[in-house]
Amino acid sequence: LIIDHFGFLEDGTFKQRYLVADKHWQQPGGPILLYVGNEGDITWFCNNTGFMWEIAEELGAMLVFAEHRYYGESLPFGQDSYSDSKHLNYLTSEQALADFAVLIQNLKNTQPGAQHSPVIAIGGSYGGMLSAWFRMKYPNVVVGALAASAPIWQFPGMVPCGDFYKIVTQDFARSGYNCDTNIRKSWKAINNVSSTASGLQWLSEQFSLCTPLKTKNGIISFKGWLQETWVNLAMVDYPYEANFLQPLPRWPVQVVCKYLGFNSTVSDYQLLHGVSQAAKVYYNYTGSSSCLNMSESATSSLGWLGWTYQACTEMVMPMCTNGVQDMFEPEEWNFQVFSDECSAMFGVRPRADWAGTVYGGKDISSHSNIIFSNGGLDPWLAGGVTYNITDSLISIMIPEGAHHLDLRYSNDHDPPSVRAARALEVKYFQQWIRQATKTPQTSKT
Amino acid sequence: LIIDHFGFLEDGTFKQRYLVADKHWQQPGGPILLYVGNEGDITWFCNNTGFMWEIAEELGAMLVFAEHRYYGESLPFGQDSYSDSKHLNYLTSEQALADFAVLIQNLKNTQPGAQHSPVIAIGGSYGGMLSAWFRMKYPNVVVGALAASAPIWQFPGMVPCGDFYKIVTQDFARSGYNCDTNIRKSWKAINNVSSTASGLQWLSEQFSLCTPLKTKNGIISFKGWLQETWVNLAMVDYPYEANFLQPLPRWPVQVVCKYLGFNSTVSDYQLLHGVSQAAKVYYNYTGSSSCLNMSESATSSLGWLGWTYQACTEMVMPMCTNGVQDMFEPEEWNFQVFSDECSAMFGVRPRADWAGTVYGGKDISSHSNIIFSNGGLDPWLAGGVTYNITDSLISIMIPEGAHHLDLRYSNDHDPPSVRAARALEVKYFQQWIRQATKTPQTSKT
Repeated sequence: LIIDHFGFLEDGTFKQRYLVADKHWQQPGGPILLYVGNEGDITWFCNNTGFMWEIAEELGAMLVFAEHRYYGESLPFGQDSYSDSKHLNYLTSEQALADFAVLIQNLKNTQPGAQHSPVIAIGGSYGGMLSAWFRMKYPNVVVGALAASAPIWQFPGMVPCGDFYKIVTQDFARSGYNCDTNIRKSWKAINNVSSTASGLQWLSEQFSLCTPLKTKNGIISFKGWLQETWVNLAMVDYPYEANFLQPLPRWPVQVVCKYLGFNSTVSDYQLLHGVSQAAKVYYNYTGSSSCLNMSESATSSLGWLGWTYQACTEMVMPMCTNGVQDMFEPEEWNFQVFSDECSAMFGVRPRADWAGTVYGGKDISSHSNIIFSNGGLDPWLAGGVTYNITDSLISIMIPEGAHHLDLRYSNDHDPPSVRAARALEVKYFQQWIRQATKTPQTSKT
Repeated sequence: LIIDHFGFLEDGTFKQRYLVADKHWQQPGGPILLYVGNEGDITWFCNNTGFMWEIAEELGAMLVFAEHRYYGESLPFGQDSYSDSKHLNYLTSEQALADFAVLIQNLKNTQPGAQHSPVIAIGGSYGGMLSAWFRMKYPNVVVGALAASAPIWQFPGMVPCGDFYKIVTQDFARSGYNCDTNIRKSWKAINNVSSTASGLQWLSEQFSLCTPLKTKNGIISFKGWLQETWVNLAMVDYPYEANFLQPLPRWPVQVVCKYLGFNSTVSDYQLLHGVSQAAKVYYNYTGSSSCLNMSESATSSLGWLGWTYQACTEMVMPMCTNGVQDMFEPEEWNFQVFSDECSAMFGVRPRADWAGTVYGGKDISSHSNIIFSNGGLDPWLAGGVTYNITDSLISIMIPEGAHHLDLRYSNDHDPPSVRAARALEVKYFQQWIRQATKTPQTSKT
């Protein structure tokens, strides 16, 4: 694929990885379900998107999982792709969407029987955003899109910046007695305990940290790491044992909260002991970790650096906390500070309004055939589309669902709401396919 | 405005020129008519788009004429903008559309009373294509678009490459006895006459060429220049005296054809004398030219070099002739030769399929609120949308119209079809404005 779709000076090309499964494909003309890759290794997403595998036969569909440029093995400049801002310059959502469009057009032009196949885009999280945007920007390429847990409104001025952490807090509040209250208390306890050298040592030991805490900055990182841990737990609060970001038990937030049920007389040390037990549910459920590494908060299949670059350019998602409606230390959203950090890290500055301009912000009613599914437990719900915008821009809510639960393999423990969501999603897919077959796409261009 | 909307390495900015007329604007919330600038000086387009000026009062509209980057005074790198392919790299339609989107968003955020103003895009020719694409890609920014004489299908595989010159030929055929026949004959006559040195001299004198013809390549250029002259005449075959590409009489093709009415017994010299008289209608209607300059075939307000670059990158528009259905020397469309020429000229190669992929080709039925108007005399009709695609993707035909006649000031000589077209266009504008006012755009992003 071409490295720069939007300029003609850089005429280099690169190989985009994509996986194809056509066992159930009814050719000619059977539909193609396209997984719109997000910020990570496509094989990992492929294995975590059982929904597509389970519906392929019913729809007679070919499955295509397309990797997002700059992640996994789809590196435009090989090992140099992340070497500097010059090489990172082609890591944008617009380039990624153009990759997907060109990939599909190529597939239709070269794969016998695929020329008139209607294509449905499917993605979750950032991939869900891409999925929705793909339908908005390339309706000639995809007849519809499922955007699962896609926070397309988590951009400046669209939703309150505090909603995300409010939802995290609610998850903990309902998962165990005093659970959110004790986490809210824990930050002060950490400050207290870490004020002495012996306290620092105790903390490092309690949390079995691979690298002991030494400095004040270390404590800031430590608290940030814990905050991220609670967020991740809320995201993957699935009703069955699963291994998405980490191997975890059924309803992990409930399991975590068992260690955080103290009443108001708890001491700082008791409280933090509980917190350490809770953290180990997330980091060491399998018991295989000899120590906890603060620099690894989730699966290495996700491309942390790439996503940080994207957040520092287009994907500006304001978040804030106030410690009242959420269980975190108060922190305002400060664009300037964020921008300065980005400039220091990558030599680029974010454009706060660009995503809203290019992807329509809240003015998307003229588009069609997009399903926005959201889980009630998922903090990313805060930036999601949670109501029907038109007859064909549909919201599906899964109250008991965490982050794109609907995309996962079905499970005996699935709540009825996710079963219903999946059934409805398939119904819309079938409707879009019927529409497309009635007015066949003349894909010859 | 930002030079590179699609990358964050180049963080330079430039000034885009735009003209505003708000005399009739009913604020707050009155509509904005946005002229989507094409490949030339915006003041020239502004003066040649009387339609907008004439309807401003009725609609209570603000007029905005936005210049396209790399043309007129909107030069991203000043005098260096055209110095090499590195500086030309940001001359693309996608960047231009992003400019227009950011301009409108800025205007809405800064101009009191404009925040909820519905915006309608208006453009002709390439500007008409941009106008349609603007609505397709940024429906959050514009509620609808008028694409006048916009050949959005003049791309590889979408329409026969010979249709364009067929329409030119038809214009001449119906504008005078044997007019097309004699032009078809003239190429051989030029070859015959130019085969001797005295013939070359005679030709140069007959056509009052500023630079006499000397070589075989000169003859090729000469024929190309004449071919372009006939094309331009067909484009501006307006029913009244006008000055668009050149100052010209009423129905200029008819005037030209008066010099080309020979029967079959005409000699090469007689025929070419007639051709020279015809060419002078186009190049010297005012009588002010002391000689004809083959390097200037139209107004200097159009940016020839910029458009050539765009044609060499995204705007790949196949054209061909066969000398049978058209009056030109046969020439096939040869993408490879074209690509090699582009590479030699700019160091870039065109991407034949990109425009079709990014702008949807013939699969645009999911979009809405676009009027495609076309003139029956206009060769660009060949690549235009000439039928209603849906209830809100409308084709308006103006059988007696040349290139975007509907955008021009009204005139006593206007045929009824263009009067009707303008009235219908305004009716649709009003409908889009009503729709937008009913469901106000929440332009806050």
